Amino acid sequence: MSRWTLYTAPGSCALASHIALLEAGADFELVTLDFSGGQPQSAGYLAINPKGRVPALVTDEGVLTETPALLAFIAQRHPHAGLAPACDDFAYARMQEFNSFLASTVHVAHAHKRRGARWADDPAAIEAMRAKVPQSMSACAELIEARLAGPWVLGERYSVADSYLYTMSGWFEADGVDLAHFTRIVDHHKRVGERPAVRRAVKESGE
Amino acid sequence: MSRWTLYTAPGSCALASHIALLEAGADFELVTLDFSGGQPQSAGYLAINPKGRVPALVTDEGVLTETPALLAFIAQRHPHAGLAPACDDFAYARMQEFNSFLASTVHVAHAHKRRGARWADDPAAIEAMRAKVPQSMSACAELIEARLAGPWVLGERYSVADSYLYTMSGWFEADGVDLAHFTRIVDHHKRVGERPAVRRAVKESGE
Repeated sequence: MSRWTLYTAPGSCALASHIALLEAGADFELVTLDFSGGQPQSAGYLAINPKGRVPALVTDEGVLTETPALLAFIAQRHPHAGLAPACDDFAYARMQEFNSFLASTVHVAHAHKRRGARWADDPAAIEAMRAKVPQSMSACAELIEARLAGPWVLGERYSVADSYLYTMSGWFEADGVDLAHFTRIVDHHKRVGERPAVRRAVKESGE
Repeated sequence: MSRWTLYTAPGSCALASHIALLEAGADFELVTLDFSGGQPQSAGYLAINPKGRVPALVTDEGVLTETPALLAFIAQRHPHAGLAPACDDFAYARMQEFNSFLASTVHVAHAHKRRGARWADDPAAIEAMRAKVPQSMSACAELIEARLAGPWVLGERYSVADSYLYTMSGWFEADGVDLAHFTRIVDHHKRVGERPAVRRAVKESGE
């Protein structure tokens, strides 16, 4: 297969896919977009991803978006890296469940801090959303903390879910979560952060 | 494997999993919860799903939540039903991408109509969120309409993504989307709605 391209942006959830590509030993190049002014609405990028968000993975079969789909696909195309359970379909479903929760609940709670204009126009409403982020993100952290039972999300085996949790848990402190209550999450974040691929992704992503 | 139990609620996204279980010919029973007063916070249900939401699928291996994970798992455990691409991993990733978009963007936009209290406390802010639902759901419908290129989400083959889109597109009109602009979505909704499993699920779900 030919070389892939990952579109990313500093501070975004695309870090999870970036880490997964490095862990997989994938042949890819990185394109870093500037999202600081909001979503990039350039016609060029919208032709690649009409949703105007990152990550987007360009392959010779087409462009893939949505972090849970990218993570599973990266793992599947690089089976030697062992980034997803291959022979245990319930464990695989658990991984997908966790990734889907991060995408549709945790990331969404976080997005109400800076992207409230997606869901309301009134500046006072956008400020009210921002004010609740510490509470909604803390509720997410509680659910995750209760679930972490081993060194990794799936217990004894590392998977792409760990790079995704690492990305989200990196947002907790700035989102007003009191990390003193979440020692398993803090330990997990440190453990993942020590992996060479993660160090390299963090450096390359410009964070 | 022993009989599964699906926890659902009328008008919820659990309809997609309900349809998939019927299409798969799965051995399951249905438990319908009453969400009309908000989320069910009964200790009994929170022991099953600490997130207090539906769907939840109880299996003898554990409880699974999050629609994209359930749909993929139901398809995987009933391969004879052909509800997901088994031998084409890019098509499978496309299905996961679509389901993830429905969960983390479309369902989230919809939830700002009645569940705004998840993201803000101020009643005026909750009303401002409700006011933007027609716009945000219409933007979702535009992305979906542009993408539908065949009778089914994946083109020529039916998959669990169709039951999920059917569930979400059933919300569009009440959410203020002008369906006259979205003929492919309307045709898809009608096409899926004619399937026997879908008729049965709609009837059983009490909608």
